[in-house]
Amino acid sequence: MISEISTIRWSDGVVEILDQRLLPHRVKYLRLRTARQVAKAIRDMAIRGAPAIGVAAAMGIALTAYHSKAKTREKILEQLRRSCEVLGSSRPTAVNLFWALDRMMKTAESSESVEEMRSRLVEEALRIMREDIEANRKIGENGARLIEDGDRILTHCNAGALATAGYGTALGVIRAAHAQGKKVIVYACETRPKLQGARLTAWELLRDGIPVKLITDNMAAFLMQRGEVDKVIVGADRILAKTGHVINKIGTLCHAICAKHHGIPFLVAAPTSTIDFKSGLEDVVIEERDPREVLYIGGKRIAPEGVEAWNPAFDITPPELVTCIITERGVYRPEELKGLDSAALSGE
Amino acid sequence: MISEISTIRWSDGVVEILDQRLLPHRVKYLRLRTARQVAKAIRDMAIRGAPAIGVAAAMGIALTAYHSKAKTREKILEQLRRSCEVLGSSRPTAVNLFWALDRMMKTAESSESVEEMRSRLVEEALRIMREDIEANRKIGENGARLIEDGDRILTHCNAGALATAGYGTALGVIRAAHAQGKKVIVYACETRPKLQGARLTAWELLRDGIPVKLITDNMAAFLMQRGEVDKVIVGADRILAKTGHVINKIGTLCHAICAKHHGIPFLVAAPTSTIDFKSGLEDVVIEERDPREVLYIGGKRIAPEGVEAWNPAFDITPPELVTCIITERGVYRPEELKGLDSAALSGE
Repeated sequence: MISEISTIRWSDGVVEILDQRLLPHRVKYLRLRTARQVAKAIRDMAIRGAPAIGVAAAMGIALTAYHSKAKTREKILEQLRRSCEVLGSSRPTAVNLFWALDRMMKTAESSESVEEMRSRLVEEALRIMREDIEANRKIGENGARLIEDGDRILTHCNAGALATAGYGTALGVIRAAHAQGKKVIVYACETRPKLQGARLTAWELLRDGIPVKLITDNMAAFLMQRGEVDKVIVGADRILAKTGHVINKIGTLCHAICAKHHGIPFLVAAPTSTIDFKSGLEDVVIEERDPREVLYIGGKRIAPEGVEAWNPAFDITPPELVTCIITERGVYRPEELKGLDSAALSGE
Repeated sequence: MISEISTIRWSDGVVEILDQRLLPHRVKYLRLRTARQVAKAIRDMAIRGAPAIGVAAAMGIALTAYHSKAKTREKILEQLRRSCEVLGSSRPTAVNLFWALDRMMKTAESSESVEEMRSRLVEEALRIMREDIEANRKIGENGARLIEDGDRILTHCNAGALATAGYGTALGVIRAAHAQGKKVIVYACETRPKLQGARLTAWELLRDGIPVKLITDNMAAFLMQRGEVDKVIVGADRILAKTGHVINKIGTLCHAICAKHHGIPFLVAAPTSTIDFKSGLEDVVIEERDPREVLYIGGKRIAPEGVEAWNPAFDITPPELVTCIITERGVYRPEELKGLDSAALSGE
């Protein structure tokens, strides 16, 4: 079962990351010893998915603390701040990354000594990991209530165990419904350009014995038109509490518009660590990645030499297209998020 | 210039077809001598695009007549009918195929002798080819009036010279506008699973010096949301005169829904040979192709072993999403098609 495969783990000063670029063909772990190596793994998408990136960033900070030879509190704080910068510049869109770095730095700053900082930062990273798995289980519980026996569910990208510390957000809801004995069928959109749906979601669901059928992204609307989709469930990389906008993998907006057009509920599953209580829409940076991700597939060029490509990694789904947001705390309409107590949520 | 490259040509009893499966990497012609070989080239998508398939089918019939050793009118008609069956079963959705076969058989049946049949069928196939190019030029003229200087135009699949006997339908409109000195930018959607947008549309437009940017299909909605698309223009494989539905490459529906959502005109360009005056929606067969086209890209498997895929080659865009249909006879709203005189259009 998928639960035996970890996305990320801590092992005595080494962060082991399942290299998702090699899936579904190979299961291989990267062994990382520095924050810089973790940042590179995030940037190169060896690990991806907003919650998983948050956990990886926390572990990157823990690595810096664990291996630091600093003798003074000021010196180690300086090293940690540098690691934060490196990790913070790896990918700009998913908010969990900044949320985790922020939490790690607060832990560092509230520690009295170098020794205390080392042990508390490793503990905090492990806590963030455990909390993410717990949050996903609760998201699964909360979301499974919305799933009916026989539902045909369309999902995009991978919001599964591989996108988190374990269990998954959107796929967590599907896993929980399946565990309750509800017969569900999943339509996995392949998710160009990086094919996370074809490579990761199909792999996870096959391993768990949950029926899955692969489609190209552009088939989703036709499937909806034929009445073969009961619900759409996706994850999120950032949800704006102020406005209810959902930032998620490129292609999400398109599914949301087509779902609305056909009267199909559009559900977003994410932990509250994905909710951004500060930013407005104008503050969000949509990462644009190397155009070669579009021009090539699997190392093979598909387009003629000389053609340009555009490669935004995310898009923005406005709140009027979102039926509800399933979190570990409960299920909310997008406009309800601004009423949530962000301080209480972050445990402050 | 693209006009120097033929999609299909007749050369003394041989049909030469540009093998589009090898583009953009190689320009190579298949030399076909039988209707069966032409049917295989259509089925395997060495040649594709509704108007091009129509011309190829007509030439397939011409090949049978040209090489026939039949001595009697009845015998050659029997051979031609067999060729019609073989060609007619190559791909079920594009109506031009059946339209061309019908026209060729009427020519055959109205011929008095074997000799007359041979020469008239070759002539008729060449006439269908010439008429297609002329129709595309007129579609270009009619459509270019709707294009404004500076328009940013999104297109899907390839409705270009390669999809026709020459010049193209959707790309014909873009070519004509460009030739008039209007500065247009084309966003070409890559069009999974067969990547006609990345491989063919980008190639054609680059050769003609028309600015083109490649995107994955799932980026179109985000581009529209950002206000960067002024018009969508696509071709068609079959347009139902009775109801105004447009059947075109999978992914078209999705763009049409997203265009409507964002208030962007959605234009369809096609010759009247693509209009089906007889069928209702229930009569249309949507071809489902080999799932391996989704599971593999360029010979490389992308999805895990054991996962199933769905692979419809076309989808159906309802008339309420279509702004207008640009033909060689004029520009029509979908609901106006049923008022057209089909007999007059087919030259009867």
